[in-house]
Amino acid sequence: VTGERGGEAAFLEDFAYLSTIGGTARGGVNREAATIPDAMQRAWFGGWLSSRGFRVEVDEIGNQFGLMEFVPGAPYILTGSHLDSQPTAGRFDGAYGVAASASAGHAIAVKVAAGEIEPRFNIAIVNWFNEEGSRFPPSMMGSSVFTGKLALQAAYSVEDRGGVSVEQALTLIGMKGEAASLSLAGYVEIHIEQGRELEANRAQIGIVTGTWGARKFQVRFIGSQSHTGPTPMSERQDALLTAAETIVQTRALADQFAEAPLHTAVSTLEIYPNSPVVVASDVSINLDLRSPVPSVLDEAERLIIATAERIGSERGVGVRIERTHHWDDNQYTPELFDVVEEVCIAQGLSHRRLLTVAGHDSTNMKDVVPTIMLFVPSRDGVSHNELEFTEEADLLAGRRTMVGLLEKLVQETQWSTV
Amino acid sequence: VTGERGGEAAFLEDFAYLSTIGGTARGGVNREAATIPDAMQRAWFGGWLSSRGFRVEVDEIGNQFGLMEFVPGAPYILTGSHLDSQPTAGRFDGAYGVAASASAGHAIAVKVAAGEIEPRFNIAIVNWFNEEGSRFPPSMMGSSVFTGKLALQAAYSVEDRGGVSVEQALTLIGMKGEAASLSLAGYVEIHIEQGRELEANRAQIGIVTGTWGARKFQVRFIGSQSHTGPTPMSERQDALLTAAETIVQTRALADQFAEAPLHTAVSTLEIYPNSPVVVASDVSINLDLRSPVPSVLDEAERLIIATAERIGSERGVGVRIERTHHWDDNQYTPELFDVVEEVCIAQGLSHRRLLTVAGHDSTNMKDVVPTIMLFVPSRDGVSHNELEFTEEADLLAGRRTMVGLLEKLVQETQWSTV
Repeated sequence: VTGERGGEAAFLEDFAYLSTIGGTARGGVNREAATIPDAMQRAWFGGWLSSRGFRVEVDEIGNQFGLMEFVPGAPYILTGSHLDSQPTAGRFDGAYGVAASASAGHAIAVKVAAGEIEPRFNIAIVNWFNEEGSRFPPSMMGSSVFTGKLALQAAYSVEDRGGVSVEQALTLIGMKGEAASLSLAGYVEIHIEQGRELEANRAQIGIVTGTWGARKFQVRFIGSQSHTGPTPMSERQDALLTAAETIVQTRALADQFAEAPLHTAVSTLEIYPNSPVVVASDVSINLDLRSPVPSVLDEAERLIIATAERIGSERGVGVRIERTHHWDDNQYTPELFDVVEEVCIAQGLSHRRLLTVAGHDSTNMKDVVPTIMLFVPSRDGVSHNELEFTEEADLLAGRRTMVGLLEKLVQETQWSTV
Repeated sequence: VTGERGGEAAFLEDFAYLSTIGGTARGGVNREAATIPDAMQRAWFGGWLSSRGFRVEVDEIGNQFGLMEFVPGAPYILTGSHLDSQPTAGRFDGAYGVAASASAGHAIAVKVAAGEIEPRFNIAIVNWFNEEGSRFPPSMMGSSVFTGKLALQAAYSVEDRGGVSVEQALTLIGMKGEAASLSLAGYVEIHIEQGRELEANRAQIGIVTGTWGARKFQVRFIGSQSHTGPTPMSERQDALLTAAETIVQTRALADQFAEAPLHTAVSTLEIYPNSPVVVASDVSINLDLRSPVPSVLDEAERLIIATAERIGSERGVGVRIERTHHWDDNQYTPELFDVVEEVCIAQGLSHRRLLTVAGHDSTNMKDVVPTIMLFVPSRDGVSHNELEFTEEADLLAGRRTMVGLLEKLVQETQWSTV
């Protein structure tokens, strides 16, 4: 058992080591869910927890837990994030939160062992399975199954582009477990901001008060194969052209609602037959609308569906739109915002309340237990990119906040009334 | 040896059998180059040739020949097309030409055996390797290597999306051969039109006098990964959006030059990382311009390159444009147009001179030997589609033309002066 004073240096060393697993030449990581690098970091993380006295368990969807039971039978305060990454990603997204949570949880255990704290709750660390969803959609899979929002069998049957299912991939890396459900008092997650609001306002800690709403769609365009050479232009039913026009109009929508604000994106495209001489007959794209204002989302959704259908009709291409995700702006646990602020003030850290645009595992957790979501700054807001970067001072400020917060929460008597 | 009178029924039966190899539920075929169905049809075709007295040889790039030597040492009149297909294709494209050439070549052999013809030249049938280029780009690979336009090693090293090279795939199906080069007097190919000009003009046989010109490009868009949610719209460097805008502008170009005419197409797209929450950083498309008017192609090329570069500049996305193919309108062998017309007139078949928009193996061959390219009608011009269709009467008219033409050509004394 190491002391808290040694904790910061050890945290930075551990995080540096973690960053080498699946590390890329440009300083990022490539650790998609249930790949070999993900299996490697899970093996490392299980060992880290185990050697510090946590009991390691994995549930049926591969969520990896480290349990520290101070008070037999008491509920747990769960804290963590995800270690999996996008294919070429930064090393902070998710991984920082897992490492900081584990380090902070360990610091609390050290204090408890030293008799400095008398806990009323237990602590559990979590590495959620497949938060990114890049190999196996949807994102936030592990926490969605954990919170009952996604059926286990539905998650198991999702296949990657090579036809490997989630169940097969979890079995292959020995991470299809059987951990029992946990009795939880609350959930705490820390993550890099992936935006510039903290940086612009020179705040060290972000207290997330709610999420932007989102509407996510899969749009499929059904045209007809023909030869790209002789076929008269007017007779082509070009699924790729129709998709391209929809992508352009989706971007134009963001300009139309720029003040709202509205963010729009299309970032995936599947095409068939993808041949140099055959007009594409089948193209699918995702389509992502985000805004803090529900009425803007409603209007944007109405407009883009009408636009895609009009374009399809003009081009003789069938358009099928499926809404895959829908969440309005909704709040984290307001009763806990002040608790975090008190900790920040006690630590001498500047702080700011803000919204998250990106989804996180805490987006799921906040709907079932009192939940705190914290941000630390990320330089230039760059994320999902190997160049993602957070200063060491900010990493440590976040960890200190986590330690202070967990110390307060494990002794909290008011949880049940939250 | 069957007689010529039995030839037509046997031809239709053989073609129906061939259509079952790699046949799809909707009446098409799926026989990409060097796949199992391609291996199967090559085995069938080699047996067909062999049992009718042709000597079967395969060259280093997998072109499959059937040689019928009437006059030892005399040059060959080569005739054929390709059996490989797009992934979901019609059953006529290429295959009809191979089957009709083989059947017609066999009919000549029967006549020679019966003493009805005194040949001056030999006949060879060819099934060119990988005309479609859908699995292994570029298209017309076998005839490009045969005519020295593409180096053998360059062709060998092309890989499919699974990382299998042409050389590996040919080896796997036993079609990496070593046939010696042939001394050729000329080349004849028959193919479905893949357009509507014959149908619209009620002509049974098309005599191809030249090709539309073409400019083909690969365009790569280099953006930057970022999160599709929080990243401000103005800071995204979205490779997919930039590609989509280029696709839309490519289509607009065709409208701008509609009277020229100009055909434009984008039909392939590769995207990275293709994740629902990451702005795409790397997108590549093909871009295809075709026109019978070289100055139109020059102007269209200038405009679309300037447009793509302007869009990329506006979007903060790098644009790299590589011209992969370039051919101007160029003629088939004019001295042979009348020869075909005489045959059509003798057979009582209506005929029409026209241009081809699509490339064919004959596009390569015409540059090295006197070459004839014939079309038969295809219903509604539908091609590269399982619904591709040519009437039996048209299939047989094409075969009859081939028989009459080969009969004339093998006795021709004027070849050397063509």
